Amino acid sequence: MTDRSPLRDLSGPPFASRHIGPSDAEQARMLEAVGYASVADLVAVAVPEAIRTETPLALPEAASETRALAELRTIAGRNRVLTSMIGLGYHDTITPGVVLRNVLENPGWYTAYTPYQPEISQGRLEALLNFQTAIIDLTGLDVAGASLLDEGTAAAEAMTLARRASRVKSDVFVVDIDALPQTKAVLATRAEPLGITLVEADLADPAALPECFGVLVQYPGASGRVASFRVLAEVAHERGAQVIAAADLLGLTLLASPGELGADIAVGSSQRFGVPLGFGGPHAAYMAVREGLQRQMPGRLVGVSVDADGQPAYRLALQTREQHIRREKATSNICTAQVLLAVMASMYAVYHGPDGLRRIAQRVHRHAAVLAAGLREGGVEVVHEEFFDTVLARVPGRAAVVVAAAEAAGVNLRLVDADHVAVACDEKTAAEHLAAVWAAFGVPGGSQGGSGGVVIDDLDRVTPDALPAGLARTTDFLTHPVFHSYRSETAMLRYLRRLQDKDVALDRSMIPLGSCTMKLNATTEMEPITWPEFAGIHPFAPIGQAAGYVELVETLEGWLAEVTGYDAVSIQPNAGSQGEFAGLLAIRAYHHGRGEAGRDVCLIPSSAHGTNAASAVMAGMRVVVVACDDSGNVDLADLSAKIEKHRDALAAIMVTYPSTHGVYEETIVEICDRVHEAGGQVYVDGANLNALVGLARLGEFGADVSHLNLHKTFCIPHGGGGPGVGPVAVKAHLAPYLPGKGTGAVSAAPYGSAGILPISWAYIRMMGGDGLRRATEQAILSANYLAGRLAPHYPVLYTGRDGLVAHECIVDLRQITKETGVTVDDVAKRLVDYGFHAPTMSFPVAGTLMIEPTESEDLAELDRFADAMIAIREEIARVASGEYDRTDNPLRNAPHTAACLVADEWPHPYSRTVAAYPVPALRDNKYWSPVRRIDQAYGDRNLVCACPPLEAYED
Amino acid sequence: MTDRSPLRDLSGPPFASRHIGPSDAEQARMLEAVGYASVADLVAVAVPEAIRTETPLALPEAASETRALAELRTIAGRNRVLTSMIGLGYHDTITPGVVLRNVLENPGWYTAYTPYQPEISQGRLEALLNFQTAIIDLTGLDVAGASLLDEGTAAAEAMTLARRASRVKSDVFVVDIDALPQTKAVLATRAEPLGITLVEADLADPAALPECFGVLVQYPGASGRVASFRVLAEVAHERGAQVIAAADLLGLTLLASPGELGADIAVGSSQRFGVPLGFGGPHAAYMAVREGLQRQMPGRLVGVSVDADGQPAYRLALQTREQHIRREKATSNICTAQVLLAVMASMYAVYHGPDGLRRIAQRVHRHAAVLAAGLREGGVEVVHEEFFDTVLARVPGRAAVVVAAAEAAGVNLRLVDADHVAVACDEKTAAEHLAAVWAAFGVPGGSQGGSGGVVIDDLDRVTPDALPAGLARTTDFLTHPVFHSYRSETAMLRYLRRLQDKDVALDRSMIPLGSCTMKLNATTEMEPITWPEFAGIHPFAPIGQAAGYVELVETLEGWLAEVTGYDAVSIQPNAGSQGEFAGLLAIRAYHHGRGEAGRDVCLIPSSAHGTNAASAVMAGMRVVVVACDDSGNVDLADLSAKIEKHRDALAAIMVTYPSTHGVYEETIVEICDRVHEAGGQVYVDGANLNALVGLARLGEFGADVSHLNLHKTFCIPHGGGGPGVGPVAVKAHLAPYLPGKGTGAVSAAPYGSAGILPISWAYIRMMGGDGLRRATEQAILSANYLAGRLAPHYPVLYTGRDGLVAHECIVDLRQITKETGVTVDDVAKRLVDYGFHAPTMSFPVAGTLMIEPTESEDLAELDRFADAMIAIREEIARVASGEYDRTDNPLRNAPHTAACLVADEWPHPYSRTVAAYPVPALRDNKYWSPVRRIDQAYGDRNLVCACPPLEAYED
Repeated sequence: MTDRSPLRDLSGPPFASRHIGPSDAEQARMLEAVGYASVADLVAVAVPEAIRTETPLALPEAASETRALAELRTIAGRNRVLTSMIGLGYHDTITPGVVLRNVLENPGWYTAYTPYQPEISQGRLEALLNFQTAIIDLTGLDVAGASLLDEGTAAAEAMTLARRASRVKSDVFVVDIDALPQTKAVLATRAEPLGITLVEADLADPAALPECFGVLVQYPGASGRVASFRVLAEVAHERGAQVIAAADLLGLTLLASPGELGADIAVGSSQRFGVPLGFGGPHAAYMAVREGLQRQMPGRLVGVSVDADGQPAYRLALQTREQHIRREKATSNICTAQVLLAVMASMYAVYHGPDGLRRIAQRVHRHAAVLAAGLREGGVEVVHEEFFDTVLARVPGRAAVVVAAAEAAGVNLRLVDADHVAVACDEKTAAEHLAAVWAAFGVPGGSQGGSGGVVIDDLDRVTPDALPAGLARTTDFLTHPVFHSYRSETAMLRYLRRLQDKDVALDRSMIPLGSCTMKLNATTEMEPITWPEFAGIHPFAPIGQAAGYVELVETLEGWLAEVTGYDAVSIQPNAGSQGEFAGLLAIRAYHHGRGEAGRDVCLIPSSAHGTNAASAVMAGMRVVVVACDDSGNVDLADLSAKIEKHRDALAAIMVTYPSTHGVYEETIVEICDRVHEAGGQVYVDGANLNALVGLARLGEFGADVSHLNLHKTFCIPHGGGGPGVGPVAVKAHLAPYLPGKGTGAVSAAPYGSAGILPISWAYIRMMGGDGLRRATEQAILSANYLAGRLAPHYPVLYTGRDGLVAHECIVDLRQITKETGVTVDDVAKRLVDYGFHAPTMSFPVAGTLMIEPTESEDLAELDRFADAMIAIREEIARVASGEYDRTDNPLRNAPHTAACLVADEWPHPYSRTVAAYPVPALRDNKYWSPVRRIDQAYGDRNLVCACPPLEAYED
Repeated sequence: MTDRSPLRDLSGPPFASRHIGPSDAEQARMLEAVGYASVADLVAVAVPEAIRTETPLALPEAASETRALAELRTIAGRNRVLTSMIGLGYHDTITPGVVLRNVLENPGWYTAYTPYQPEISQGRLEALLNFQTAIIDLTGLDVAGASLLDEGTAAAEAMTLARRASRVKSDVFVVDIDALPQTKAVLATRAEPLGITLVEADLADPAALPECFGVLVQYPGASGRVASFRVLAEVAHERGAQVIAAADLLGLTLLASPGELGADIAVGSSQRFGVPLGFGGPHAAYMAVREGLQRQMPGRLVGVSVDADGQPAYRLALQTREQHIRREKATSNICTAQVLLAVMASMYAVYHGPDGLRRIAQRVHRHAAVLAAGLREGGVEVVHEEFFDTVLARVPGRAAVVVAAAEAAGVNLRLVDADHVAVACDEKTAAEHLAAVWAAFGVPGGSQGGSGGVVIDDLDRVTPDALPAGLARTTDFLTHPVFHSYRSETAMLRYLRRLQDKDVALDRSMIPLGSCTMKLNATTEMEPITWPEFAGIHPFAPIGQAAGYVELVETLEGWLAEVTGYDAVSIQPNAGSQGEFAGLLAIRAYHHGRGEAGRDVCLIPSSAHGTNAASAVMAGMRVVVVACDDSGNVDLADLSAKIEKHRDALAAIMVTYPSTHGVYEETIVEICDRVHEAGGQVYVDGANLNALVGLARLGEFGADVSHLNLHKTFCIPHGGGGPGVGPVAVKAHLAPYLPGKGTGAVSAAPYGSAGILPISWAYIRMMGGDGLRRATEQAILSANYLAGRLAPHYPVLYTGRDGLVAHECIVDLRQITKETGVTVDDVAKRLVDYGFHAPTMSFPVAGTLMIEPTESEDLAELDRFADAMIAIREEIARVASGEYDRTDNPLRNAPHTAACLVADEWPHPYSRTVAAYPVPALRDNKYWSPVRRIDQAYGDRNLVCACPPLEAYED
């Protein structure tokens, strides 16, 4: 279809009308309620003139869904999917169909939010607990977290954890020479600003271990070599250093666990447990630690607690380590996980069970052993005697020729150097691949033999396993019944459905979380990510095979630059936290490059999100807090004072815009100017970009660098708490310092979580510049509409001109709490009874709720939410009036489970009907919380982070 | 991967182990319970020696899921997807992504059963009511059914309905010369055995209408012509004939409705409402009738009734017209619908609403108008002045050349004859297609013009619409709020989720329906059907473009022949009923071919399914009932007597094997012999084939012809009541009489519901012969295990040797009902409280429940069901003992909704806990019925078959 079809005006509503919830008629009613004649009028007042852009977004005209998919098919067709035997932590794998369709392609799973409200997240919390249990079992350690971003960053987090935990004063961290190259690169990026000295060492000789606070050993090594690090661990421990094993999960089904060998920490990727390659991500990394380290472990940790009825219930444990961390102490900003991918990996383990995993590992190993035997028989030198899945061959001077021959035969091998080729076997490796590899090495052979070549059958018979004798796994794993109960597809399907049904995601109701922008994740955006042409590419495949991806990335980076007013973008950071870190590194490198290495002070307003300070610390900066006024705006006087005080050391200011209070600060341009004048750079956190797109450009009103959250503004689903993508965008002077362009890697994969970029590409392609702007306008209108409906009932904090908010609003419960004892927690949990996910609780201000409706919610849903909030306010009034008991009322006892409502005894002074159906519409559409309110403290006091025995559930 | 990989033994569990529920260990426990040492021992006793086959299934060795998908990708790649502008009732369409993924690709929808248990089917019943409402509105008639198989069979059903309803004694049925060719073909097949004379007439001159009981007019015609049939309808009505309009739904958004023009009945396809072409099906046909005809209308009809609490609730209305129809009166065996596709079409209407549909229709029409104008400008004669979407061009002698040129440019046109080409526009038609079509006709042009060609923009400006002035639609449609409330994707997603959550499908629990074989519909089997290469092929595309489909069909037909022991198979019939009809037609044609046209008696045992007799009547046979003994077996003495009585007229016997009582009759070979000896043919209903595959072959033990149910034995999901595929399989002597091979069409599309054949192909490919046999063995073991667990509590009716059943068992409640008043209905509805779909109720014996577990249920689920049945038996015992009131007890009041359980008043003598959680496991996994027991009679007395106004739901 050409863009110029004369019949276009008949072609039905554009995608934007499907993405934006309210219809034109609904929008008109909302405008009337808010008191403006038009959206333009509203925006003119709400958004400060000083930041408004004058140039509309120069993006391609919006494409229909059909056309966007067709274009993506064309782009996908430019990728060439070969069999990748490259290894290096990325291995092809078979995603069980039932997991693919019912998790990765199911909105019940992928549109869920992070399980901060545990009562309505029991399904994914159980899946994550299964993940942790699998990791604990396989690594032989005591506690495992609920996933990290990738193996490289997990290793970096382990390094800093080791530093915190070590009693040695050394700044040296030793890295196995046989560690994954991308892990080394991420470690280097992370180490330098923290003053850590990285030393690469051949760990084959433990005695040669230098003085250090920690050591990372790759197990098996990147070269394929498998060796015990037991002695190394003893030596390290004697010297007070922590031992980190970066271990392959599939290998661990056959090999002695890191815990048995003495590791304090294990990290790695769970990608090969059924998660597509996706050109590098998203995948879930893992971290497990020995007893004693769990309270210092980064990332999320699911634990078991009890609910108000004493029943077992899951929730995030030790949450204070996360956002609420004390800013000046922050040494990690990992509050992003990869929940959706961790769920997939855990379900792969549930589906296969220990026997199945072991069988897959044995098959992989047997292929590797036979491959090596064939090479040797053909006169090729195989370097290591002992390996799991990767065979390193020495072919002096011939390596490039061998790799090229294999590629011509459809197989990617790893060119290690001019003399070495590595070949990694995986779950999909079959006889035909061995034959192709042998042929590439010049060794004739295959399954049939003939003409004197090697014969797979014969080799298989005579070739022994190539695992070190002393390293055979002797301990059980995955003994919990969950790994034995869902072996048929039918049983697995029902298990997934049962878990999904426990949770609230966007497929049930709005999730009005402030600053989290839980908007539509449209099917058309999601469809391409599971196409084989996007899902099947190895991150280190020859770039010519990924031409489609390169085109997609470059186009998307260009569009994001246009949207933000920056000059260059890198999509490498695979979470907002990583983009933030990368942005500060760019500032740091810029100052260093100008000979101003002394600039290391980062100003951060007191209203900032905790991760800002954490990123600054990680980037080697000193945090100086700037005060805010009562409206939550930066106190300009204090800002000037702090600038003066630190003028020569000023590196940057980090602000969020609109502010974390959901307000367009009028002074932002002034702030930028003052910082620039003092030689500092301006970092604007892009978390609230959904309030700006098409109306203002960060790069135009004074910012130098930002990270964006593609999982907020650009429709990548939250996946229950990851994946995310956090591109970093900069003005031209910082472009040379972007990750993957000039400075070091911040993610393991060169293009980060490339596999989900088609989502954001499709969103922008289908919205066009006009649609994007309209989305922003509607988001602002919807927030103001909600604020207007709620204001007569709850005080709305922090407004800008004419009492308007930006794209979110904060309702204040502090006075209510003081007067009635009803807390934000009570309101949040009571909202569950009304079928809603709570707004953001007590951030940025304790005792408040921050509400962001986004543009995707239609008027009916906005009203349903407002009605619920108002009905709850009436319930609060009954507490105030004494009609309801102050401690035994529907708010304090929320959420109410069906079980408690159906119990033969009803001990409460209010009725069952009031508890269950406070508004009539619930009778047709009721979500039943699977548990009652969860006791957070109990779980932290009695930390259980693996699947509890079944007896725990008995009455 | 080669089949001969020496590493295969490590390659993990084959698909069969995922499809078959019980593990080896579970199987061993079940064998022990049943009292056999091995499956072989059990089968040796259960399955009569006389029918056992000696030759194992000669099928390809089982492929892994990955490999089967790869092979299907290769086959799919042999289809070439061009733009099809062929029309003839099949039009390309855009399936909204949210509907594609959340209905067609969602097991919550596709694994559901027919809504015979309405309380647990409210979601799909609402969707079907939406479908009926849309059809009623668009056709302007009074009542619409919940879908039929395809437009051709719907027209045939309309023909027989007209005959029943007409007061004229004529046997003549008049068909519009401009009717769809495939409709004419199906009408011819159906008319002949019923003694109906088909007359084709040009209806342009109404006065020329011959004496007839009915007339079918195509609106718009196959040639594209749009004309009013108002005068024709008046003439027909004056003469006492019924008027049937076969109408295009999209066209009806712009055209006066059939009802306004005087039609008594309207039929057609809803395919172009978002359902993929799929090489011909499955799609949902519709039928609507004027007031007065609804009780004679074939097919299912959803109606509104009330539940025990007086709340509105949906259920199938007037069900007595279905299976329970009196056999000798049967004139239709349509009890199969296309629910899944009707749901999709209805959701397309919900998603677009009336404005959206009208806009799509206008766009289609404008493209057709501009196309015609361009042709005329280029000197091509356009035959009709007035048309909707199809333009008929006259190109004397050049038609084939034009069609070939278009095909070369990627567009399929319709070659009408040597001088005429038809071009149909659809939702996907765009400027580039018009340009390609013009070029094929030798007319230069396009969107840009240039070199003197026609220019779309210019033409669009000057070309008026081509719809007849007097036929413009002036009446509203889709005015119900449901067609106005879900316009954003977010809202639509939640509506689909909400409906899905009301229903029980295989993704929640087993559905133990006797003879319905509700086994796993595996993801890997389902994935290919939505690949564009399978979904995008027009049924009348040049066969060379469908090479993949042809290969798939031929392979599948060959495998089905191998499985059944027949010589030839036709997959054309798109439901079991159609396969049955086709099989009897083959018998009839065979006898006619041998000069024995007098053979018209069909023997049918009294235990037979109602459709058997209906098919026989439709095939022009006289039904003679053969008695059964107390065990449900054919009474051989009565059989002999009936054979003797009708020896010269004997056409066939129809039996089900294993019998409808779930027993392997020992005498089947004897029955076949006796019938053959008398010159009759043996028809074995393949409904229970799941008890035979790999153990016995129908064609080996004496049958001549069968239909199979791919939606039972071969894993096509039931889709909530369709689609189904009912291939007919025959011995060699009947092969010349198969549909699509020798005799007339029984389905509109040449390959029937080709679009879903990849499912059965994948199932057989992944199971292999060994896996299929093991599945059968497990099905038999599971049925006997359940029978064994239930027998101490309920009498098990009808067993064979050693007290064994086949693949299903019947538990008898008659004595219980007599003693306690507790009915099968009470047990069925109480099972809902336990989270289960009821077994088949009162078929084949009133007062009983027939249970078929299938091989896909694991032991835990079988036990969960048995535990529920036993717990219910204990509840019955409490009624018997007087502990429970005889009229106010948990059985009689089942199902219990959450609303009734949470009500402040609890008026029942048993507790809420007993009502809600009779077994503890329900506390973790509770399905809440959305309504209480539905009053069937109320709904039939007060027939409402369209969406009720919202006020109906007010308290």
